[in-house]
Amino acid sequence: MEGEIEFIASGNVTSPRGFHAGATYAGIKRKASDVLDLGILFSEASCVATALFTTNRIKAAPVVLSQQCLQSGRALAVVVNSGCANAFTGEQGLADAAEMAELAAKNIGVSPEDVLVASTGVIGQQLPMELIKAGIKQVVLAVDGGRKLARAMMTTDTVPKQTAVAVRVGDSEFTIGGVAKGSGMIHPNLATLLCFLTTDAAVDIDFLKFALLKAADVSFNMVSIDGDTSPNDMMLIMANGLAGNKPISQGSRQADAFQQALDQLCIYLAKCVARDGEGATKLIEVTVSGAPSAAEARLAARAVVSSPLVKAAIHGGDPNWGRIMAAVGGSGVEVVESKIDLHIGNICLVKAGCPLFFDKKELVRVLRSSEVPINLRLNLGTATATAWGCDLSEKYVTINSRYIT
Amino acid sequence: MEGEIEFIASGNVTSPRGFHAGATYAGIKRKASDVLDLGILFSEASCVATALFTTNRIKAAPVVLSQQCLQSGRALAVVVNSGCANAFTGEQGLADAAEMAELAAKNIGVSPEDVLVASTGVIGQQLPMELIKAGIKQVVLAVDGGRKLARAMMTTDTVPKQTAVAVRVGDSEFTIGGVAKGSGMIHPNLATLLCFLTTDAAVDIDFLKFALLKAADVSFNMVSIDGDTSPNDMMLIMANGLAGNKPISQGSRQADAFQQALDQLCIYLAKCVARDGEGATKLIEVTVSGAPSAAEARLAARAVVSSPLVKAAIHGGDPNWGRIMAAVGGSGVEVVESKIDLHIGNICLVKAGCPLFFDKKELVRVLRSSEVPINLRLNLGTATATAWGCDLSEKYVTINSRYIT
Repeated sequence: MEGEIEFIASGNVTSPRGFHAGATYAGIKRKASDVLDLGILFSEASCVATALFTTNRIKAAPVVLSQQCLQSGRALAVVVNSGCANAFTGEQGLADAAEMAELAAKNIGVSPEDVLVASTGVIGQQLPMELIKAGIKQVVLAVDGGRKLARAMMTTDTVPKQTAVAVRVGDSEFTIGGVAKGSGMIHPNLATLLCFLTTDAAVDIDFLKFALLKAADVSFNMVSIDGDTSPNDMMLIMANGLAGNKPISQGSRQADAFQQALDQLCIYLAKCVARDGEGATKLIEVTVSGAPSAAEARLAARAVVSSPLVKAAIHGGDPNWGRIMAAVGGSGVEVVESKIDLHIGNICLVKAGCPLFFDKKELVRVLRSSEVPINLRLNLGTATATAWGCDLSEKYVTINSRYIT
Repeated sequence: MEGEIEFIASGNVTSPRGFHAGATYAGIKRKASDVLDLGILFSEASCVATALFTTNRIKAAPVVLSQQCLQSGRALAVVVNSGCANAFTGEQGLADAAEMAELAAKNIGVSPEDVLVASTGVIGQQLPMELIKAGIKQVVLAVDGGRKLARAMMTTDTVPKQTAVAVRVGDSEFTIGGVAKGSGMIHPNLATLLCFLTTDAAVDIDFLKFALLKAADVSFNMVSIDGDTSPNDMMLIMANGLAGNKPISQGSRQADAFQQALDQLCIYLAKCVARDGEGATKLIEVTVSGAPSAAEARLAARAVVSSPLVKAAIHGGDPNWGRIMAAVGGSGVEVVESKIDLHIGNICLVKAGCPLFFDKKELVRVLRSSEVPINLRLNLGTATATAWGCDLSEKYVTINSRYIT
């Protein structure tokens, strides 16, 4: 391990130096106590910035705008709302996203080209621009505003998802912060509606792009809640360089430490998203090892964690492990039945393809705990991957059968 | 249209001449009133036969055995049980499947090589062979036994799925019968656990293979209940030639009529499977037109009908049509937002990418009816496809969270 990496207690997106954030209730979401729905994240120094965007062919207006904006490789701020996705909203949607950037730029005192936009919520409805206009004026930025921003991004999330890590490597010390929101329409790639990452490290743009992709691949791209991909997905990283380090570029000790820290932070956030999936009562962690290739390990792990039948069985504490085999077999990955080992928690259910006798009560106990680790060894190669998801509950259906009514 | 095709009232798998069936309660499934769990389908004349099998890499023992058996292109009978899938059961499972074929062959008085085997139920448990042995002895075959067989194949199905069509073309008259079972772990390909088709037509084996593939492609391969593919899928067709027609081969008027009849029969059964999906309260029919290619039309239609978020919204009568756009965009199919038209029932929701004002009450009424037709025009080409599925209800979760406990 290169350097020292430490999670910061109460860490968030404004933990790195020079980042400010604020949020308000603009009235876009239905009012409940403590609800926020509009926020701004801002760096006092210009950032090297890059993002990954949804692979959905229907791209929300803020995605189109932010993609254009990031062609410069720089950004200063992002304005975000929940309650309305500004997706499938045509020319009006694009104009509204641009106006949102302008309004936020005016509030902060920067140029609109430096402001990215992100939205999340109902698809196919125009943004309520009067509310957005009035709301943006109310946003007050603060160096400790990260936690408010996290709340403003929530839709069906029950808890905000945020953390930060401090990294010390050689003479350099820097911090990476992050915030993400779930919690439905979540599937690789990217299995996050929105994730904003901040760092005060100085980072070379090429390495930053590489590091973000790599971190996404071990974290958000390994999470599935429901198999649906949102048109609004955006995973952004902004590096303002205020740590004063020499810009980190590929192949250095600093780069290794940065990557490790970013991976850990993103995995932490991805697990938060999985655990808080719509209606979820537990986290499922599926590790596939002994796969012929990394791609197959990833595919198999994601297939198991995405299977509605596996998810429903785990929800009910039903020891129906055959569904795990059906899911991995159905994934298209090479498997040989007589080589497969399966563990759930510490209980070995299948060894070399043979179902073993096991303590059903003990298995039910593991299935009923808040984290269910599933280990599947294919014993065909050396590749390993881990994916995260959640159980499928009646509540998932209830939430999604009356989302806008 | 070549010839006349007519659905037969109370038609089933023994409607074609020379097919006999019978079933019993062997004790494999939990006892409820009227439960059957073991059956035999038999033709008094040797059949040209072919089948499509699961694409799951984990293949149930009866699938392995039946695949071998069908290499001859002929069969006389199939023995089927519900309650136990005999999947992921290793060498013992293969031996048990072979013994099942032998026992059935003995009961009927034919050679075991002419008997196919099919199983459905829980994965990862060995067949209770004592019950199977005793049960097979009890099965009495009858020329009107098709309806009993249909009941013996049911797992979580709430109704048996069967029909038959009478075809008249030129001088020939023949009948095709069919039975299918759902109703969970259903996803293309093939989106049916088990489907047996029978016909008294004489059919050339090459054309029979072609016709089965084609019928599967417009029917069971266009159904999704939950995105999971079973290790036991088998779609079998047996043609005994007792109609006395000249064997049907490709390119003839008879072939066209046979294909049309088979397609209609399979679509009927596929819709029965979709409508009776686990926990379903309604049938969803998604037609995608104006796609650049048939493959893309099929992919898009299946993506919409498979989306848990679309399914949950329809379950609740929630007019959240944006999810349909997210699902089609997420499918990877080429789409241009500004060209898409969307109708649900007769209500136009989107025209050339523009959301229209619509009568919300009227839409909720359509969403709450027992069949919800969704029409999506991509306006990029001329290809069309239709897929079927069902809504996602709390009951789906309830059923699947306590399947074996």
